[in-house]
Amino acid sequence: MSENTTHTVIFQPGEIVCEGVPHGANLLRVALLEGVHINASCGGTGACGKCKVAIEGEFEGGRSAKLSESDYGAGLRLACRVEVMGDLAVTIPEESRIGDSAALTHERRPGPGRVLTPQDLENLVTGWSVDPVVKKFALKLDAPDAANNIDDLDRLKLGLKSEHGIDSPSVDFRAIRELPEALRQADWEVTATVVETFRGPKVIQVAAGDLTSQDYSIVLDIGTTSVYAQLLNLNRGETVAQASEYNGQISYGDDVISRIVHSQKPEGRKQLQQAVVGTISEVVEQVLRKAGVDRCQVSHMVAAGNTTMTHLLLDVNPKYIRIAPYVPAATFMPPVRASNLGIDVCEHVHLYTFPCVSSYVGGDIVSGIIGSGVFQTGKVTLYIDIGTNGEAVVGNSEWLVATSCSAGPAFEGGGISHGMRATRGAIEAVQIEPSTGEPHILTIGGKKPLGICGSGIIDAVAELLEAGILGQDGKFREEAAGKWLRRHEDGQWEYVLAVGEYTAGGQDIVITEPDIDNLMRAKGAIFAGVNTLLGSVGLEMDAVEQVYVAGGFGKYLQLDRAAAIGLFPEMDPERFTFVGNGSLLGARLVSFSKDMLQSATQVARMMTNIELSDNQQFMDEYMAALFFPHTDMRWFPRMEQILSKFS
Amino acid sequence: MSENTTHTVIFQPGEIVCEGVPHGANLLRVALLEGVHINASCGGTGACGKCKVAIEGEFEGGRSAKLSESDYGAGLRLACRVEVMGDLAVTIPEESRIGDSAALTHERRPGPGRVLTPQDLENLVTGWSVDPVVKKFALKLDAPDAANNIDDLDRLKLGLKSEHGIDSPSVDFRAIRELPEALRQADWEVTATVVETFRGPKVIQVAAGDLTSQDYSIVLDIGTTSVYAQLLNLNRGETVAQASEYNGQISYGDDVISRIVHSQKPEGRKQLQQAVVGTISEVVEQVLRKAGVDRCQVSHMVAAGNTTMTHLLLDVNPKYIRIAPYVPAATFMPPVRASNLGIDVCEHVHLYTFPCVSSYVGGDIVSGIIGSGVFQTGKVTLYIDIGTNGEAVVGNSEWLVATSCSAGPAFEGGGISHGMRATRGAIEAVQIEPSTGEPHILTIGGKKPLGICGSGIIDAVAELLEAGILGQDGKFREEAAGKWLRRHEDGQWEYVLAVGEYTAGGQDIVITEPDIDNLMRAKGAIFAGVNTLLGSVGLEMDAVEQVYVAGGFGKYLQLDRAAAIGLFPEMDPERFTFVGNGSLLGARLVSFSKDMLQSATQVARMMTNIELSDNQQFMDEYMAALFFPHTDMRWFPRMEQILSKFS
Repeated sequence: MSENTTHTVIFQPGEIVCEGVPHGANLLRVALLEGVHINASCGGTGACGKCKVAIEGEFEGGRSAKLSESDYGAGLRLACRVEVMGDLAVTIPEESRIGDSAALTHERRPGPGRVLTPQDLENLVTGWSVDPVVKKFALKLDAPDAANNIDDLDRLKLGLKSEHGIDSPSVDFRAIRELPEALRQADWEVTATVVETFRGPKVIQVAAGDLTSQDYSIVLDIGTTSVYAQLLNLNRGETVAQASEYNGQISYGDDVISRIVHSQKPEGRKQLQQAVVGTISEVVEQVLRKAGVDRCQVSHMVAAGNTTMTHLLLDVNPKYIRIAPYVPAATFMPPVRASNLGIDVCEHVHLYTFPCVSSYVGGDIVSGIIGSGVFQTGKVTLYIDIGTNGEAVVGNSEWLVATSCSAGPAFEGGGISHGMRATRGAIEAVQIEPSTGEPHILTIGGKKPLGICGSGIIDAVAELLEAGILGQDGKFREEAAGKWLRRHEDGQWEYVLAVGEYTAGGQDIVITEPDIDNLMRAKGAIFAGVNTLLGSVGLEMDAVEQVYVAGGFGKYLQLDRAAAIGLFPEMDPERFTFVGNGSLLGARLVSFSKDMLQSATQVARMMTNIELSDNQQFMDEYMAALFFPHTDMRWFPRMEQILSKFS
Repeated sequence: MSENTTHTVIFQPGEIVCEGVPHGANLLRVALLEGVHINASCGGTGACGKCKVAIEGEFEGGRSAKLSESDYGAGLRLACRVEVMGDLAVTIPEESRIGDSAALTHERRPGPGRVLTPQDLENLVTGWSVDPVVKKFALKLDAPDAANNIDDLDRLKLGLKSEHGIDSPSVDFRAIRELPEALRQADWEVTATVVETFRGPKVIQVAAGDLTSQDYSIVLDIGTTSVYAQLLNLNRGETVAQASEYNGQISYGDDVISRIVHSQKPEGRKQLQQAVVGTISEVVEQVLRKAGVDRCQVSHMVAAGNTTMTHLLLDVNPKYIRIAPYVPAATFMPPVRASNLGIDVCEHVHLYTFPCVSSYVGGDIVSGIIGSGVFQTGKVTLYIDIGTNGEAVVGNSEWLVATSCSAGPAFEGGGISHGMRATRGAIEAVQIEPSTGEPHILTIGGKKPLGICGSGIIDAVAELLEAGILGQDGKFREEAAGKWLRRHEDGQWEYVLAVGEYTAGGQDIVITEPDIDNLMRAKGAIFAGVNTLLGSVGLEMDAVEQVYVAGGFGKYLQLDRAAAIGLFPEMDPERFTFVGNGSLLGARLVSFSKDMLQSATQVARMMTNIELSDNQQFMDEYMAALFFPHTDMRWFPRMEQILSKFS
């Protein structure tokens, strides 16, 4: 059965039907995402043994040391260890329910928004074919003799012209250095790598033999926090491997401002450049190893990053990005020899960086607009990328206006006491049983909880609000104190998400009021930014026909949870599409197609930019948004109703 | 009085009138060049005290410890220590004469050919103005504000467009790195260095302030034996300094073939590249120091070299240059960042190499054709460059055919027992008194003799022939044995040019039969090559309207001495012009003018090439030329008459 097959899971009691469950999905995750309450304290490791269920249908796993032989014999399994392999009927016994009516009282929450499969994501944009800017051409040349002893380079050029119609290319002198041996090694059969520059073709490498069947590129999303890489097979138009790592610059500061500050210290810029190159080298190494592809088969690289990341990667001084009037050194950077940057690929490989729009609307956003297909649509589209910064773009194929809000890194786990990136062991989904205040959690990979990632903290705060444990002002309600909400010895209130017994570190994982405050300011900045952006073009949220949400956490994010904290208004979920890493999608397209590279240039040129700093409307909107979900509840009717019982 | 003033010197007895003597000329040199015999055994250092003369008129110097007080009091001076400062009447006393009738028996020799002043040389080519391919442009930009915060690079480009009409330049990313500081350092006044590439303008550097008043280039002649450099002021169109050094590659072999062989050894190519770059760095350092010019004021470099030198400088594999069918890697090399080659100039400086024609007709010849103006003339012109190889070109502005003869390095002092390059201490002029066989010599700089350079060995062999000491077969006549022609203890005959008493090394400086044999083969190859070249286009020497002779030794070479050994036929001296270092002349023009750079490309494309290896006509001509001056005396009527007395 292929990875794209889906199944139907029916939970009892309550006859809650979940359709479209991916083959191999974790059963506890299916329940949590659907809002079906099952006890789970350990994050899905099988350590607490609380999520026992009876299952009919095809599945795998379900055992752990915590499941007694008699329970197993009675047909019970641990939901957190079960993989769905076919349609299932699942009965939640009373002991696993939260209260005795958990499933029965399940209220159908708004749908999750469109979460696209990798296949869907790669098909968001149409009308292009694989035709990269850097291409390999095989040539079979005549050997020289006394009657025809023109130099090797002219012979190569004549071959390119007659066999491939490539006229008067320029030739990098590094390609000339070994030309004589390259031509003669395989009896005058060679492969020339030719790049289409905006001023005509340029030969950047010549190697012996026909190497056209092995042609790859590497695309990168250079985030402030993380670097993502994909290895692409340029012949087959396929993604063959991916990898990601924390951006090594993190040790010099969490956000772009602190990085720019560091870059102005002696050796600072060099340190930052080397740090990100170190990370790139790691992910490059990983994708090559995973796919078993030789480093020499990589023909080019494409990187999308915000304006500061782009500057620092190329070792361009970013100083004035952070000083009014916020002027970058350049928004359009020329392609750069990757080895000159210190990246361990062949000398001829050039790195293309996405053009930026302004100091705070960078190439990652341009890339996202390309990758998500916004640049092709007639519909008024809102594109939101939530990373360490939050950026928003509104427009369509005709016009595009962008802005950037200093959201801070809360959505990537930054500035949160137990925050972490969305990697294995991160609590990514949280449910809180309203009657007891008990948390049920799921970690990425079903590992012992290490911390909490962006989607986890959103889930947690949304659930805390709905359970009446947290007030709309972001302060805990002391009357909810108990086993899970407690006062720390330093006097601060904290909510316990996972007890030390089940965590990887052996310490309780908690959420504090300062954590919640950081999240409030982050979501407030994004909500206010989007509203200011829409206002600048005379639109209200209603006029937005579709919303694309990008960001590393996108695919785990529950739309109703995001609306519950006020990150987005409550809208028809059908209008929302989660595109995941939009920057990487765009980088991928640009790597496959020179037409898309051209489109990226056009998008960057047509996109205009609204500065939010010193913008009074933004300041007003921001202040109004420092409340859960918002001081103006017009956009949040569902939450208004839920929260009304606490007021 | 300016350096260009000339004087008239009259020698007595004999009333020999020398006109056009340069101000400051050495009096002994004037006499030797005119064929006036004055005793001189020490090379012009004042050590032998033999060249006493009485002088009327304006002069400086003339004393040495060897001149007694009584002689001085009697008005005698040493000619070798006298500088001509006005018109002179010089009387040679009997004791200084070689025999008692030296001056009287002086036979007027054919004129010396046109030796051009540096000023003349720089005016051989007309119709160009100073308009280099790399130019500096001063810009005064508006500072950004909130209403106009486009990126620095776009601001720069707008300025280049509006202030200088430069449209859509590409920009090297290295220039972008420090752009923000460069723009702000001098309040938005900057200088952009822009190169005109064949695909449009490219910005390669941006620096603070108006730097247009300081703009220099460095041009190089990369010879197999020596490297010459000139520093050019691009604003004033002037040469401001020059320097030369032995090519550091010499330690890996004397000629291009031995260099290519070395380049195929492990690390060999790298060693050769580093060696020549080391030499270039030295001459660059020298010209900058001499002129007091800062390294950062150099905008570009131009190098002319033969095909092998060009390959090795750029670290391009020259392997197949020496293997039939003699194919170079490339004849047209792209401009290369000089710092990438290891040359210590600013990072933006590009090195342009002259295009080559074939494996053995290189950029130095193309440069010479440009520098001498052959590419502009309607006259059928023979251009001969005598360096470590000999190259010859025949043609005019309409057509050009070239060839190369493996002359070997004899004319640069290579393969000669006491041979040396034409630098201080080299014996550059020789006269032999026929009655006694005694040599009279002059060294470069009037220094103690160190060895003998190309013009010295030509002079010596010509004089030995005319004095009957050497036979036309290149063997000494044993009947001439005496004080100066002697048999060495190893049985070989040798002629003593300077006795150890007067030499720098304290050893006799001699000429041996193997030395003479090397010279014969060298001149034979060139004579045969020229004849074969002319034959290939159906011409005889008579049809040649003018002859340009280039080569480091050119300006010292006496045309009649060269004809005496058979390097050239005896022709009207008016048809001969000595252009000195033709390659450097061409490099200079190409550096000053992008039109000339374009012309160099055209010349390299239109020039065709005759291969002499395996050419039967050449082999026949070569065998016939292995005789002094030649087996066919048709071209040498004067020598036929002189030599007839010995047969």
